[in-house]
Amino acid sequence: MKKNNLIIGRQPLIEAIRSGREIDRILFGRTTSGESIGEIRKLAKEHHIPIQMVPPEKLGALTKANHQGVIAFAGLVQYMDLQEVIDHVVGSGGVPLFVMLDGVTDVRNIGAIARSALCCGAQALIIPDKGVGALNEEAMKSSAGALEKIQVCRVGSLLKAVDSLHLNGIKVFTSEMNAAARVFELPWVEPCCIVMGSEDNGVAPHLRKAADVHFTIPMTGDFDSFNVSVAAGIILYEAMKHRLP
Amino acid sequence: MKKNNLIIGRQPLIEAIRSGREIDRILFGRTTSGESIGEIRKLAKEHHIPIQMVPPEKLGALTKANHQGVIAFAGLVQYMDLQEVIDHVVGSGGVPLFVMLDGVTDVRNIGAIARSALCCGAQALIIPDKGVGALNEEAMKSSAGALEKIQVCRVGSLLKAVDSLHLNGIKVFTSEMNAAARVFELPWVEPCCIVMGSEDNGVAPHLRKAADVHFTIPMTGDFDSFNVSVAAGIILYEAMKHRLP
Repeated sequence: MKKNNLIIGRQPLIEAIRSGREIDRILFGRTTSGESIGEIRKLAKEHHIPIQMVPPEKLGALTKANHQGVIAFAGLVQYMDLQEVIDHVVGSGGVPLFVMLDGVTDVRNIGAIARSALCCGAQALIIPDKGVGALNEEAMKSSAGALEKIQVCRVGSLLKAVDSLHLNGIKVFTSEMNAAARVFELPWVEPCCIVMGSEDNGVAPHLRKAADVHFTIPMTGDFDSFNVSVAAGIILYEAMKHRLP
Repeated sequence: MKKNNLIIGRQPLIEAIRSGREIDRILFGRTTSGESIGEIRKLAKEHHIPIQMVPPEKLGALTKANHQGVIAFAGLVQYMDLQEVIDHVVGSGGVPLFVMLDGVTDVRNIGAIARSALCCGAQALIIPDKGVGALNEEAMKSSAGALEKIQVCRVGSLLKAVDSLHLNGIKVFTSEMNAAARVFELPWVEPCCIVMGSEDNGVAPHLRKAADVHFTIPMTGDFDSFNVSVAAGIILYEAMKHRLP
């Protein structure tokens, strides 16, 4: 992370958040306290910015300036509001095809998924504010620029995001090892959102339960695990194929 | 690379190669000379083992033992002979589906491709002895074990490997940005080999020329570059789909 992505000190951070600047995450020294810290916590909550408690020495290692126990990383991605993205896509005659990342932690996989999403005509990535790899410079590089082009919605709760999708008539599809439906049998021409789970545990049970359709990628070989970005690419490719003119 | 993968000194290396042990690459100190060096060069050529000239200090940094100007890395993968693999696949009633890697240098991509290949029922990876990422521990890890299960054929010339494939009735398919045929329109049920090119330059012209069919993955979005392991996954998935019972 380059130094010019750092926002150092309490008031500069409060002003940055208020002015609408994207903040990736905030580091608090463990011993940090004071009135403006409460204000930062409140703003962070409103804007779904994760806060991390760190040993004070870590802050000192990041900067020699007077950090007052607070350093933030400015975001490299401009986050969008989910409802605004839905309105924009539908308003411009598009059929929503979104990708939700539930616990994909490897930033290179996130970058590769963003590329596939754009290649296949998906309009947005939905990510949670916790439990997902940072959209940092390595993710940007792996995305070959795709993360700067695709709409990224960062939300406080993926489950609430699923509710919003449902309210807008967008179906939610999740991949599962033993689902009966096969990926190419799904109604991909409808407005939909694909949920990709973590590399280790797949989609979280509460999200799986909230989903409308569960499907599987059939495998004929004697091996059963695609890399998560490859699986996302196959699913997006299949969705695109159904939408080809 | 763990130290126990090192083969140190001239005679130990000659014996290791003669005994059929897999060698990933040989490092020669730039000032190394002598009769047994000629012998090692000859054996290396016969077994398609790449030789790298390095400053003598590099050898000293790898081991404190008396290396005599020669250190080799033992291979983590058991390489197979292409013709034997073809005979084995066909002999056991299979229809060859192979993947040839031309200049894929990122070891994580190689690992992911090996996983997809196994998932989709491909039987072998064909790699050149130069210009491809090493099948090292990182590649192994990315492959989630797939590199230990799939047959890997390391060849001195990919062009000669294409000749062998042709002699055995196996068609060679390459992906190209502007080809007329789309990936899902190909005769995937026939014996075939997919050539994946480098992340930057695609498939080398002489291989492209030797191929039987050129195809493209259609893209509807405003972005035109899948990650190479994602592209390989999509192609392998499409091949598998055509071969589903």
